[in-house]
Amino acid sequence: MPQLQSAIFARAARVTKGRAVGADTDIEELRRHYSSLSDRLGATPGPARFAPAQLGPVKGEWVDVEGASAHRIILYFHGGGFIAGSPETHRPLIARLCQAGQARAFSLAYRLAPEYAFPAGLRDAVDSYRALLHKGVSASSIVLAGNDAGGGLAFACLLAIRNAGLPMAAACVAMSPWADLALSGWSILANARSDGALSWELLFMSARHYLKKQSPADPYASPIYGGFRDFPPIMVHAGSLEILKDDASRIGEKAAEANVRVSVEIYDGMQHLFQANPDLSEARVSLQRMGQFIRSKAAGNAAATAAQ
Amino acid sequence: MPQLQSAIFARAARVTKGRAVGADTDIEELRRHYSSLSDRLGATPGPARFAPAQLGPVKGEWVDVEGASAHRIILYFHGGGFIAGSPETHRPLIARLCQAGQARAFSLAYRLAPEYAFPAGLRDAVDSYRALLHKGVSASSIVLAGNDAGGGLAFACLLAIRNAGLPMAAACVAMSPWADLALSGWSILANARSDGALSWELLFMSARHYLKKQSPADPYASPIYGGFRDFPPIMVHAGSLEILKDDASRIGEKAAEANVRVSVEIYDGMQHLFQANPDLSEARVSLQRMGQFIRSKAAGNAAATAAQ
Repeated sequence: MPQLQSAIFARAARVTKGRAVGADTDIEELRRHYSSLSDRLGATPGPARFAPAQLGPVKGEWVDVEGASAHRIILYFHGGGFIAGSPETHRPLIARLCQAGQARAFSLAYRLAPEYAFPAGLRDAVDSYRALLHKGVSASSIVLAGNDAGGGLAFACLLAIRNAGLPMAAACVAMSPWADLALSGWSILANARSDGALSWELLFMSARHYLKKQSPADPYASPIYGGFRDFPPIMVHAGSLEILKDDASRIGEKAAEANVRVSVEIYDGMQHLFQANPDLSEARVSLQRMGQFIRSKAAGNAAATAAQ
Repeated sequence: MPQLQSAIFARAARVTKGRAVGADTDIEELRRHYSSLSDRLGATPGPARFAPAQLGPVKGEWVDVEGASAHRIILYFHGGGFIAGSPETHRPLIARLCQAGQARAFSLAYRLAPEYAFPAGLRDAVDSYRALLHKGVSASSIVLAGNDAGGGLAFACLLAIRNAGLPMAAACVAMSPWADLALSGWSILANARSDGALSWELLFMSARHYLKKQSPADPYASPIYGGFRDFPPIMVHAGSLEILKDDASRIGEKAAEANVRVSVEIYDGMQHLFQANPDLSEARVSLQRMGQFIRSKAAGNAAATAAQ
C-alpha cells in the first residue's frame, strides 16, 4: 500500500511544517523542526550495530550491518540544516543505506552552528576523510554520502579534497542535498506549497546561523557555485515536491559541465527525504539504486586495511 | 497631516502587495507590481524639464530643475528590480532629488532583464559614466544615485569604476537600495509582514530573471559582497519596516570596514521608498538631507563643461 502510506506521510509532514518559523524563532525551536523530521526515519534495522569512535579529531560512530564488506566505507554526513541532527538521529536511514550498499559507515558528529559557524563542519568532514586515509584506507573504497545539509557538505568536502590534492573518494551519494545556501533554486518558490517538510523560512534561518556574515554563495558552503572538475561519480535523489528539488538538478548540471559521471533522479510525487519511510516503494527503489551505485563504485576488496 | 497621509499610503501599499507572486507569475505581471509602486511617486514638480538624450551608447533623459547648478550632475539609476521601470516612471522622484541637490540629472534607461540579463544593466551604467567623463565632465561633479535595484546598481557601478581605474565619482546616494540578490538580510524575513510594498517572492523572481544562472553573490550584482575600498562618501536612506532595511545597514558596515565615509539613516515606522510621498514629513527630511549631501560633495562650480 505505498500510496496510502505516502498520503499518511505527507499529511504528517504538513502538520510538522505548520509550526511557522519567523525571524524570532530561537535555535531550540529551529532544532525541534529538524528533529521532528528525523523522528520520522522509522525503526533501525535489527542487525545494525553502532559503536562510538573517533576519526582523527572528529567524533562519530561506526555503523555495521550484516553482510557488509569491511573494505567499503561510507563517510556519512547527517542532515539538519547545519544546526541540528546527529549520527544518532539518523541511525535508521544510515543503517538502511549500509545494508543496501553492503558497506560499513562512519557517521560523523560534525560541529554545528550557531555554536560553530561555517566552515567548522566542513573542516570536520575533511579531517575525518584525511584520518581515514591516514589509517591506510584506500580512497577508492570510500564513498561520501549525506542527506539535506549533509548532502551539501559531501559535495563541499569533494571540493576541499580536490583542492587540497588528496586522493579522491570513489563516489558521492546524496539524498535531497541542500547545496545552495543562497536559496536561489526555482523550486524554493515553485514548490513552497507542495513541500510538506521544509520551508524557505527554516532554511533561511539555518543559513543565517551557519554563515553568520559569510557569503551564501561561497562554494564551500554552497557547492553549486564551485566547479566539479575531477569529481568522482555522483548519484543524487530528490522528490519532485520538495523545495530542494533544484539543488539536486543543479548538481547534475554542474557535474555534466565538468564531464563528471552523474545520475540525478527526481522521484515523482515524492516529498523531501521520502527515503525515511521504508514502507514506500519509492524509498525502497531509491535505497536499492544508491546501494547498487555504492557497490559498483567502491572497491570493497582492496587493500583497505583495518579501518577502526 | 503627515500621519494620516502615511496611513493612507501604507494601506495603498498593502493592496498592491496583496496580488501574490508565485513561480508562475509572468514577466508582465511582475512588471505591473513594480509599476504600481512607481505610480505612487506623485506629481512631477512643475518647473522640471525632461529631455531625451544619449550618453555614449546609452539612452536616457536629462532632468533640469530651476536653480540647479549646470556643473553638478546626478547620474540616476531608477528602480524596478532590474526587470521594470524607466526614467519616465521615476520622474517625480528624480526631479525632487534634483531640486533638493540643486543638480541636474541624467536618468539612465539601462537595459532590463529578462531580455538583457546581468551584467547588461551594469555595463550601461558604467558606459554612461565613462561617456560623461569623455564629455569633459569632472568626476568630482558627478554623484551616482538610485533607488531599489538602481541603488544596488549605483554601488556595483562604484566597484566597476574603481576596478577599471576610472576617476572616482564625488559621492553615492541611495534610497532603499537592493544590494543583495541572495536575499540574505535578516529583514527579508523579519520584515516580511511589515513591508507593504515589496515581498521576498517578487525579489526572488526578479533576481532569477536578472541573474539567469549566475551567482546571486557576484559583487557586480550584489555589491555587499564586494569590498568598498576607495569608495567616495555614501548616504543611504531606508524605512524601518521594509524587507530591504538590512541591505542599507550592511552597506553601512561594508563602507565602515573600508574606512569610507558613510551615513545610513533608517527612518522609523517608514515603508519602502517612503520618499515617494512628498506630503510625508519624513520624505521631506530624507530628500533635504540627501540634497544637502549632494551639494556638499559635488563641486557644482568646477570645470565641468557643457555636459549635454
